[in-house]
Amino acid sequence: MSYDDLLTFVRETEALAQVSGRLGWDQETMMPRGAADQRAEEVAALSRVLHKRRTDPRLGDWLADIDDAALDATGQAILRHLRRDYARAQRRPEDLATALARLTSRAQGIWAEARAADDFAAFAPTLAEVVRLKREEGAALAGGGDPYDALLEDYEPGATGAELDAMFGALRPRLVALRAAILEKPQPAGVSGTFDETTQLTMARKIAEVFGYDFTRGRIDKAVHPFSSGSGADVRITTRTDPNDPFNCLYSTIHEVGHAAYEQGINPGYALTPLGQGVSMGVHESQSRIYENQIGRSRAFTGWLFEELKSAHGDIGVADPDAFYAAVNRVQNGHIRTEADELQYNLHVLLRFDLERALISGDLDVADLEAAWNDRFETDFGFAVTTASQGVLQDVHWSLGLFGYFPTYTLGNVYAGCLHTALRNAIPTLDSALAKGDASPATTWLRENLQQHGGLRPPSETITEACGTAPSEEPLLSYLEGKFKALYDL
Amino acid sequence: MSYDDLLTFVRETEALAQVSGRLGWDQETMMPRGAADQRAEEVAALSRVLHKRRTDPRLGDWLADIDDAALDATGQAILRHLRRDYARAQRRPEDLATALARLTSRAQGIWAEARAADDFAAFAPTLAEVVRLKREEGAALAGGGDPYDALLEDYEPGATGAELDAMFGALRPRLVALRAAILEKPQPAGVSGTFDETTQLTMARKIAEVFGYDFTRGRIDKAVHPFSSGSGADVRITTRTDPNDPFNCLYSTIHEVGHAAYEQGINPGYALTPLGQGVSMGVHESQSRIYENQIGRSRAFTGWLFEELKSAHGDIGVADPDAFYAAVNRVQNGHIRTEADELQYNLHVLLRFDLERALISGDLDVADLEAAWNDRFETDFGFAVTTASQGVLQDVHWSLGLFGYFPTYTLGNVYAGCLHTALRNAIPTLDSALAKGDASPATTWLRENLQQHGGLRPPSETITEACGTAPSEEPLLSYLEGKFKALYDL
Repeated sequence: MSYDDLLTFVRETEALAQVSGRLGWDQETMMPRGAADQRAEEVAALSRVLHKRRTDPRLGDWLADIDDAALDATGQAILRHLRRDYARAQRRPEDLATALARLTSRAQGIWAEARAADDFAAFAPTLAEVVRLKREEGAALAGGGDPYDALLEDYEPGATGAELDAMFGALRPRLVALRAAILEKPQPAGVSGTFDETTQLTMARKIAEVFGYDFTRGRIDKAVHPFSSGSGADVRITTRTDPNDPFNCLYSTIHEVGHAAYEQGINPGYALTPLGQGVSMGVHESQSRIYENQIGRSRAFTGWLFEELKSAHGDIGVADPDAFYAAVNRVQNGHIRTEADELQYNLHVLLRFDLERALISGDLDVADLEAAWNDRFETDFGFAVTTASQGVLQDVHWSLGLFGYFPTYTLGNVYAGCLHTALRNAIPTLDSALAKGDASPATTWLRENLQQHGGLRPPSETITEACGTAPSEEPLLSYLEGKFKALYDL
Repeated sequence: MSYDDLLTFVRETEALAQVSGRLGWDQETMMPRGAADQRAEEVAALSRVLHKRRTDPRLGDWLADIDDAALDATGQAILRHLRRDYARAQRRPEDLATALARLTSRAQGIWAEARAADDFAAFAPTLAEVVRLKREEGAALAGGGDPYDALLEDYEPGATGAELDAMFGALRPRLVALRAAILEKPQPAGVSGTFDETTQLTMARKIAEVFGYDFTRGRIDKAVHPFSSGSGADVRITTRTDPNDPFNCLYSTIHEVGHAAYEQGINPGYALTPLGQGVSMGVHESQSRIYENQIGRSRAFTGWLFEELKSAHGDIGVADPDAFYAAVNRVQNGHIRTEADELQYNLHVLLRFDLERALISGDLDVADLEAAWNDRFETDFGFAVTTASQGVLQDVHWSLGLFGYFPTYTLGNVYAGCLHTALRNAIPTLDSALAKGDASPATTWLRENLQQHGGLRPPSETITEACGTAPSEEPLLSYLEGKFKALYDL
């Protein structure tokens, strides 16, 4: 089989994967509730088609036949992905994958019930079984290497637990110290008022356009949990509104626009190939986070946003752009990761990373997980976890078997820090554009230097190429310390 | 392979077919316009998966292995469908199917341009090629039988051109005479006013519920052309609004609810099998038409609807329920099938049936089609076709290769006529319910006597079982003559 024939096969697989993604979108936005059981059968049927194509034994022969040297850089990058994915699929035992799919589908329901009942013990035996199977899967994928690293590879190809541990180890003490210092200071006021849903959604659309979201290749709908879905010419996002908190809708939207703009920004020539989508979870999160935080929560941009909010909603309870900037960036105690501010968010992630690594290595038993969580939380945050639903049961990830997923959140923030430094160096006048509600210098720079390349290079190399230096946690730390010390007069 | 294994394979195929249908829905309602090219690749990839499963050579062996006698009636009916579909797939030459798919995809664009330019000659050579390939396909499928009948089988299994010709031959003179007599009488006034879109859509939802549409297993959205899509637990409909004509939205909605209620009414045990969807286009159309016309345009129901419209929109320009009933059922001259009233609609269909049958038999050349159309139109309607876009170019069907589709519209009306007689006999008090806006006696009767059976029996037998007598055009004719003679004082 020639490279072109192989590519035709691959493009069909990727086209079917897009269909599968769109079913997921439909389920969260449009599907009538009575259709859930039938939908499960539809999703399962399509998943089996995809699995069969991705593990087709003929792929191995085809891949062996092709002479990489005869291909251009794009072709070689595509083959690199295909070989990697095929090798991983070969190493993943089919029985184990089936058992995990069955278990995690059940585990998610048990987790939800345990969380509602605030009872970790009700979930622990199931979680222990998930951990057991994931350890087995990690060992099979690792082929003698580190099982956690092998699991991480599903979300962040090339990353290792040891590297992340070093990076996160450097972050943790400085973040803990910073949050402790801040929380001794007086808190700025938040915004207040009631915020009409239609007005919020109209502004969400406007802000999406400000951040370069292309509505001719996407759409915004409401969903319980905001997400971005799809690649290439059909990248849809969702948002939600809270009548008392306009930031929920605004910053969810900007975050998802970051993800979507990455997908929309990829070289169209890569569409329906392994290069035609964001290269890793971490790099993806770097885009959502730099849009949301470094740009969206900057003093310059919030100055413009303040006026927009006032003209849309009337009085919002804060007097001027500086007070608004302080309100947007307020640091407050809280147990819940998804509600955390820019600064504390990473501490929530670091806790999960250390615990899940210990679970997979066998250093931590599921029976001891709740105590370990609560101890660590109190150490880093300075106050106690009082209920399991506010602690170890708050996230769905582990019930789904997603071990190795959490660290990509903070890795994304680290990458965003690196990109932000490079962006500011490249465009010293960025703030004057942001102050006028013009984010295009930033989004254009990101598209040209990072987004367009999709999966062309490995994740870490993607960041290095964009920034001109290798990734490091230092830019994120400097940025956070600079921003929050100034905000809190430290 | 056991019957159960075969059924698992078939259920997966049907689940994928549902996904394919939902992609079609998405394309008409939700898809961003820039996604069209990518969507074409997605649809093509899924179509290839479906085609491969439906023509899988192993199916022939599996079907040969199974002992029908060991199965219950449901299993035997499923096998009847599978054997029929497989045999047809075997007879349909793959090269020809590919050529037709390619040609009709192109032909649709050429037709649209020719229609916009009012120039049949620009479309004729392409249509001639479509006809040539469809004749070839019909001959291959017929295996010595009649090619048109073989094409008809795609839409109305078991029907023959000769039978339809006899039925339609009995309809035509009486319909032509009736319309001629009516159009010499004074016309009743239509409704007038402007009709707010939101109010129209709210009423559409209410009317859908009146006709038993189950929103927990469906939804209504706007689309350029109203349609119903999906089977089983996820059956969605679309509608449209016209600010000057509330009947457009209302009766489109009732029509599509008829289609959707059929799908929703099928025995859930048949879901994702060949029995789990409407058995033919004709039987499907019988449901949409009896909902729309015999029930929706009845004096009793329009009496209730009149009050509803007035309370939603204020003055609608007609004085009382009788005047409203006359306005709903106004018969007016017009060239366009899709805009035709209940009475004249069938004459548009009969014209197309005779012409397409002659094209496939070879009795009519595409070069002579426009003249033949115009002659026939003037004979039946009493006035001339002035432009091709109002005549031979008005419908997309032939450009898509849909020969054998048109007659199912009138067959559906004939079936609706039969069902209506049986329904009225079974429920003599129906009008008193309809006059209160309660269509449930009718929809329940239809669900129990027809809809629930899905594909259990062949189409004509489905109607016979529901009505207690074999289908005939006589009930439709009596109904139309009775209704319109009374309305127009003939």
